[in-house]
Amino acid sequence: MTDVGTLLAGARQGRIAYIARLLSIIENEEPEAADIIRLTYAQTGRAIVVGFTGPPGSGKSTLVSAITALYRRTAARVAVVAVDPSSPYTGGAILGDRIRMRERYLDTGVFIRSMANRGTSGGLARATRRVVGILDALGFDVVLVETVGVGQQEIDVSRVVDTVCLLTIPGAGDDIQAIKAGIMEIADVLVVNKADRPGADETARDLIQMLTLGSPRLAWRTPVVKTSAEDGTGIEELIAAIDKHRAWAEESGEARRRNADAMRHDIQALLQERVLQDLATRVGKQKLDDVVLRVVDKTLDPYGAVDALLRD
Amino acid sequence: MTDVGTLLAGARQGRIAYIARLLSIIENEEPEAADIIRLTYAQTGRAIVVGFTGPPGSGKSTLVSAITALYRRTAARVAVVAVDPSSPYTGGAILGDRIRMRERYLDTGVFIRSMANRGTSGGLARATRRVVGILDALGFDVVLVETVGVGQQEIDVSRVVDTVCLLTIPGAGDDIQAIKAGIMEIADVLVVNKADRPGADETARDLIQMLTLGSPRLAWRTPVVKTSAEDGTGIEELIAAIDKHRAWAEESGEARRRNADAMRHDIQALLQERVLQDLATRVGKQKLDDVVLRVVDKTLDPYGAVDALLRD
Repeated sequence: MTDVGTLLAGARQGRIAYIARLLSIIENEEPEAADIIRLTYAQTGRAIVVGFTGPPGSGKSTLVSAITALYRRTAARVAVVAVDPSSPYTGGAILGDRIRMRERYLDTGVFIRSMANRGTSGGLARATRRVVGILDALGFDVVLVETVGVGQQEIDVSRVVDTVCLLTIPGAGDDIQAIKAGIMEIADVLVVNKADRPGADETARDLIQMLTLGSPRLAWRTPVVKTSAEDGTGIEELIAAIDKHRAWAEESGEARRRNADAMRHDIQALLQERVLQDLATRVGKQKLDDVVLRVVDKTLDPYGAVDALLRD
Repeated sequence: MTDVGTLLAGARQGRIAYIARLLSIIENEEPEAADIIRLTYAQTGRAIVVGFTGPPGSGKSTLVSAITALYRRTAARVAVVAVDPSSPYTGGAILGDRIRMRERYLDTGVFIRSMANRGTSGGLARATRRVVGILDALGFDVVLVETVGVGQQEIDVSRVVDTVCLLTIPGAGDDIQAIKAGIMEIADVLVVNKADRPGADETARDLIQMLTLGSPRLAWRTPVVKTSAEDGTGIEELIAAIDKHRAWAEESGEARRRNADAMRHDIQALLQERVLQDLATRVGKQKLDDVVLRVVDKTLDPYGAVDALLRD
């Protein structure tokens, strides 16, 4: 058993190895995970938590790296949580990105964590939310979550962060189709990244037009920001847009509503897990085996089997 | 409420409308479903249950139609359960197939049922197994299950039927790759359908070679049968291979083992559902809402919330 108190004390002093160990316990749902969450939960809710999602090749990692640098000018400590399996931190991307992020690695005010991909996207979302919660409770001022935009994951990221930035790049017609198809619903800020490439203005115009055509989403008018991590274009503007969204979400009650929604999912999932664990303990393999044999021999039907197991 | 006794009596007399209604109750998990299963379960296990799986375009429906005709020479009653969403019975295929199967429709000894696609493949497998069970208990001598071979469904079909026939067609290189990748594991009989087309012998040879290369699966040597529903080639041979597999499975204990495996899954799923239903009833929306608010306000952590809900 790991002593949770010692780990937490070390992590609060900013000791990287302790932070890493705490996050591993959470991510792998080791027995101490519940204790760690119990002990840190009340200190959460202070960090700025921003998500960056978009298809592979939309330059998420490079943009996150550039934003990290800018946040570091004002924020004492920044954490990056990478959920993207193709992210450079997990070894899927080109050397250029890797080297660029290395600068951040060498900055002791920046902590970088890669999440292993966990079977279901629901499981990944929960593990990510908990990792973010711990980093928040440990006093990181900003937590940036980078997640690849495929399938279910964009939906989940909105349960993890305060503000979702959805990235696209100039001329990515297919991306825009995907955005149209509903992913835009979860975007709080739309980003046309790699805006130094030709066609950025057209892509931004398309997105703005799409936003006016769509049903207005709450009272928040989703901004479209053009960025380029190469030449620094739009990075400050993007941070301003994120700040504006957070202020609006706090004031309008949207932040609270979104948080409640995430918590409801989390609690329901925990509750189900707990009940199913109790069930497994109560029923046990031998009892189940016995009942299965009786069902195979047709002296019992499947519903009768369930009754018998629950009666015991 | 539907009177289950009346429905069952009518269905046992072979009245189509009663059979259809029974199956709908099972498929939609209406309240009477449990009673129907309790009342019929002891009569299951008599029918020959064969599955046909393979990619769209491999000619499953036409082959099933040809096999149905041949089984009808000896078996009094044949049921076809189509789980393939592109199947002609559900309207996804060409007119020729539809007309060909129409002959079977007009044969009163043949009952055809399309399964609606039910969210998860696990749910579909269970619903299909139950529908097959009812048809078996109602006295159908042969039940043929046609299911499209994509993703998880091939795995599930092996929990539904006694013998799995996996279809491929001449020159379908990709299919063979897919077969290589593990799907073959579940095939009891490999079928090269549309064998009147060029390349059938090569495809059959490739499959046989693959079988010798792979690790021997149990004591059963998976046969490769070339069929053509067009000219009737190999249909009798295929039925002989199916019969041989069933005899082997009965004798070797594989049938019992497979049945126990299916039942174990079914009982566990039912047990979990029952417990989660009880939980939802016990906890209720108001209680959950209250606890969520306390978690949002950080006067309670998510684990504490679960404790509080389970304590009540």
